[in-house]
Amino acid sequence: MFQSFDSTANPAQGPARVKKLRALLAENGLHGFLVPRSDEHQGEYVAPRSERLQWMTGFTGSAGAALVLREAAHLFVDGRYTLQAKQQADAGTFTIEDLMGNPPAKWLTENAAKGWRIGIDPWLHTVAEARALRQALETAGGELVALETNPVDAIWDDQPGPPTGAVAIQPLAYTGEEAGAKLARLATAVKDTGADATVLTDPASLAWAFNIRGADIPHTPVPLGFAVLHAKDRHALYIDGRKLDTEVLAHLEPLARLCPPDTLEADLRQLAETHAATVAIDPALAAEKLRLLVEEAGGTVTEMPDPARIPRATKNAAELEGSRAAHRRDGAALAKFLCWLDAQKPASVDEIGAARQLEDARRAVGEATQMPLREISFDTISGAGPNGAVIHYRVTHNTNRKLGAGELYLVDSGGQYQDGTTDITRTVAVGEPSAEMRRHYTLVLKGLIGVSQLRYPEGTRGADIDVVARAALWQAGLDYAHGTGHGVGAFLSVHEGPQRIAKTGTAKLLPGMIVSNEPGFYKEGAYGIRLENLIVVTPAEDIPGGEIAMHGFETLTLVPFDRRLIDTALLTEAERSWLDSYHARVLTEIGSMVDGETLAWLERATASLAE
Amino acid sequence: MFQSFDSTANPAQGPARVKKLRALLAENGLHGFLVPRSDEHQGEYVAPRSERLQWMTGFTGSAGAALVLREAAHLFVDGRYTLQAKQQADAGTFTIEDLMGNPPAKWLTENAAKGWRIGIDPWLHTVAEARALRQALETAGGELVALETNPVDAIWDDQPGPPTGAVAIQPLAYTGEEAGAKLARLATAVKDTGADATVLTDPASLAWAFNIRGADIPHTPVPLGFAVLHAKDRHALYIDGRKLDTEVLAHLEPLARLCPPDTLEADLRQLAETHAATVAIDPALAAEKLRLLVEEAGGTVTEMPDPARIPRATKNAAELEGSRAAHRRDGAALAKFLCWLDAQKPASVDEIGAARQLEDARRAVGEATQMPLREISFDTISGAGPNGAVIHYRVTHNTNRKLGAGELYLVDSGGQYQDGTTDITRTVAVGEPSAEMRRHYTLVLKGLIGVSQLRYPEGTRGADIDVVARAALWQAGLDYAHGTGHGVGAFLSVHEGPQRIAKTGTAKLLPGMIVSNEPGFYKEGAYGIRLENLIVVTPAEDIPGGEIAMHGFETLTLVPFDRRLIDTALLTEAERSWLDSYHARVLTEIGSMVDGETLAWLERATASLAE
Repeated sequence: MFQSFDSTANPAQGPARVKKLRALLAENGLHGFLVPRSDEHQGEYVAPRSERLQWMTGFTGSAGAALVLREAAHLFVDGRYTLQAKQQADAGTFTIEDLMGNPPAKWLTENAAKGWRIGIDPWLHTVAEARALRQALETAGGELVALETNPVDAIWDDQPGPPTGAVAIQPLAYTGEEAGAKLARLATAVKDTGADATVLTDPASLAWAFNIRGADIPHTPVPLGFAVLHAKDRHALYIDGRKLDTEVLAHLEPLARLCPPDTLEADLRQLAETHAATVAIDPALAAEKLRLLVEEAGGTVTEMPDPARIPRATKNAAELEGSRAAHRRDGAALAKFLCWLDAQKPASVDEIGAARQLEDARRAVGEATQMPLREISFDTISGAGPNGAVIHYRVTHNTNRKLGAGELYLVDSGGQYQDGTTDITRTVAVGEPSAEMRRHYTLVLKGLIGVSQLRYPEGTRGADIDVVARAALWQAGLDYAHGTGHGVGAFLSVHEGPQRIAKTGTAKLLPGMIVSNEPGFYKEGAYGIRLENLIVVTPAEDIPGGEIAMHGFETLTLVPFDRRLIDTALLTEAERSWLDSYHARVLTEIGSMVDGETLAWLERATASLAE
Repeated sequence: MFQSFDSTANPAQGPARVKKLRALLAENGLHGFLVPRSDEHQGEYVAPRSERLQWMTGFTGSAGAALVLREAAHLFVDGRYTLQAKQQADAGTFTIEDLMGNPPAKWLTENAAKGWRIGIDPWLHTVAEARALRQALETAGGELVALETNPVDAIWDDQPGPPTGAVAIQPLAYTGEEAGAKLARLATAVKDTGADATVLTDPASLAWAFNIRGADIPHTPVPLGFAVLHAKDRHALYIDGRKLDTEVLAHLEPLARLCPPDTLEADLRQLAETHAATVAIDPALAAEKLRLLVEEAGGTVTEMPDPARIPRATKNAAELEGSRAAHRRDGAALAKFLCWLDAQKPASVDEIGAARQLEDARRAVGEATQMPLREISFDTISGAGPNGAVIHYRVTHNTNRKLGAGELYLVDSGGQYQDGTTDITRTVAVGEPSAEMRRHYTLVLKGLIGVSQLRYPEGTRGADIDVVARAALWQAGLDYAHGTGHGVGAFLSVHEGPQRIAKTGTAKLLPGMIVSNEPGFYKEGAYGIRLENLIVVTPAEDIPGGEIAMHGFETLTLVPFDRRLIDTALLTEAERSWLDSYHARVLTEIGSMVDGETLAWLERATASLAE
């Protein structure tokens, strides 16, 4: 759980590995090679064999890229990782660059010399990324070279093999729709765009479409693999046979031809060559390699968004029922944890200890309810005092801090259960909070309530409503430097697209989409406040006296807000009333799942604000 | 003022004119010709000689296009004009099409036959529009033909000549910046994009840059003309010499070479031919003809937004001072009018009579203050009862309606004064309003107040805050089908870009930008409610206890809201307090400009809600 980066990093090896890579580049007439932090599926988490960036540079962050040139090497990371990258990567070898302000494509436009040949592994870059890199190099008079084999793999002697986590069937009770029906819908979508086939490259789409789950990468229960979905022909699923037991085989065989992953290239080539097929791929998700395979074999590539994205994002009744149950369980675990935390003396608990206690509480409730915690849905953010102000804080043994008196403690965590994925943030007072802390907490809470109780017409996009979570902070001259909410999957990825509440949220909010609602405020060097509930878009309903049926949100998360941090004078009557109803609902829904001290704590925590 | 469309329309002539046009098309091997409702400058209002669409079809709406084919003819209008188009255009000749859902480019993609040659006058379409039409026809296997002369002009015997409204100097006291300084800024912008020159095509940009105003088209005090601004060379202004007196000549001659409009084509051709120049044009504003002229003569066209747009939109201190003065005057006129209206018996005044009274009030206050009303800034929308629910209602003798007891009356109007342009909407009760009317009015008012008192960080776009004006209506299941606000010029166009508050408002809100704040609610067949103030973006200011300097809005409009329509129970304390301060300010700022009954009325109208 606590991947302490100082223990796994090995900056000492960086220079030697870079030297080996350079030798290989020279042999191949290349002036450089780009090492991204991604695998063939472009997800947030990757298997150990795909941690090439870390192996090459020592840098363990979750985003970045290294550009290794003949004479220099550049490590591109975003603002939250600048310090970490400097600590982890060999300073004599790597210059740190700004991934956001000056990403590799921009850097190459401005710095590449005429004639430069820069290599990439086209399996590790999307069509859109490769296009940007190609244009950048062409502008500079250079050339992007898509390599047949990855030179990092060639020099990485003890590179782990592909993961072989067991695949499990996700039962109909939780998926609410047979895989056959889903695949038929996807085939229709492919047909409607005029393509012969599409390649599903996102493991979450694969998992959703085939009603399976996997164990190949951390935190996200997906199996790595690809599927080629045909408009008319039989589908093909490319997945390592070692992951499939008899039962899973029996489930999958009626749905698709099961093929070893290493036959995908040949099959695609044949499809393109023999049938002159038109293959649809999502340029934002699919590897550049797929485009090259099809086009080089004489096929046509058309672009379409992954057809599983919207059906997967709009949860059906069974998925929502599962999510509600998972959130009751998660709420009981949080209550147990928060009750325990309240009983500890200030400075007696540290960030790692608190996060362990929370994970234990999730496990305990999971076991008691026969629905065990499969995994935490991401590395817990457990930040006391000033650490709470670091938005993507990940505690390490070096930064681990006691929860001291008069401080705020921010904990952002989630669980993966077979019936749903959770993600919740609460901020609590340790000892006596200051008036300023209470004011800031209440302003953040007003934003959360604003979104929670909003009604909005069909067609409203996440971008349209982002301001609702910020207005109270803005009035006070405050803001937060992140979006208000991200999509969440159904026992899938805790970060799911396309739904989101943010200035960049151009997807319409459709019934069944689960998004987070997590405004915050961060006072650098002092404390962080973030409050996060998961909410689901409800179907448009008539409002008495209204003319337009309106969507709204149902709140899934069931955990009290810290009353010690609420300045009720700053809340409107409508806000107080929302909070009282929410707390009453929390008690009703999870009261029966806890007992003893926790129940007593929960009753106090959920009492009306007027009491 | 009341252009009663039934009196100017002449559907009887439509068929004969279409027949003549078809003969001309056949001679030229064309399958059709597109007649837009626009001139060479793409503005909202056009001079009589440019009313080709009306002349050809009888349709007098402010937006639309006719596609005259060999066998058929299609008139494209948007939803608000469907009925009017059916009444005005000959039904046997024109099929009415949906300009928004199925514009000419889309219609041609789907309906053009292979080989079709469709003509346009490239002076009357922007580069972007022509591009869309060309792509549409190419998709259908046809061809877009840019004609050298306009065939409508060829058959329009008594077509009026170009307008020759006198040009006047706009004094420095109102512009706040010498034309020379503005032109130097624009030249720098041209140079910075690497172009040799740009063509200013928007008359409002011309008027702003040269500190002149004109009288060529209704409602907008701009002179029609073009300017070629050079990065290094002397600028050239193409304007009809008949519009310029000695004083104006003396003002303009130091700024630019003055040229007859009909020399623009030859000059641009020479610039492109002799100097192989790169000419920057705004594809969303500039005529396709300009692109053709430059490219056909061997020059290069690059695209850049009109460099005057942002400087013109961000008003300086003198322009804002002028606008404030214009709004005081306009507020006094509205007070006079609303006081008069209140004293009339229900059903004794009709929409035309009320609008005339309001225009008279503006004239009277203008004369009394030696700052005469130059013109109303658009055709007044004066709608009683159900007519108020027609968003773009324009009263005619046919629709003119008495302001009856128990009805709402909506009046949206504005004035052009030398120091500023105004645009204001108020909705007032005639007799006793219903509880529902009061509730709806108050919900709209909540939206207006929400925007008025909003604070927001630098970089916020109009799109980000549009929801603030809607949230209260959304909660009640209501909405309005228009944007929340449009930009407004400084004694220029009442509809100015790029600033706006709407889902499409992608321009950042910069200090000095004037926008309208006009939420509404329309109950079809019953009543319309719209409340509109002009507001200006204020510089970012520190907020006590805040961390980020925040922009806000200063309200320019100074007219009370109808207390009889406010359900104070629906307002929050903060909203009531905003309204009381606003009303107090209205009395302070315009109280001294009115007297007698009007002053007594104003004192009552602006008293605290608690009284």
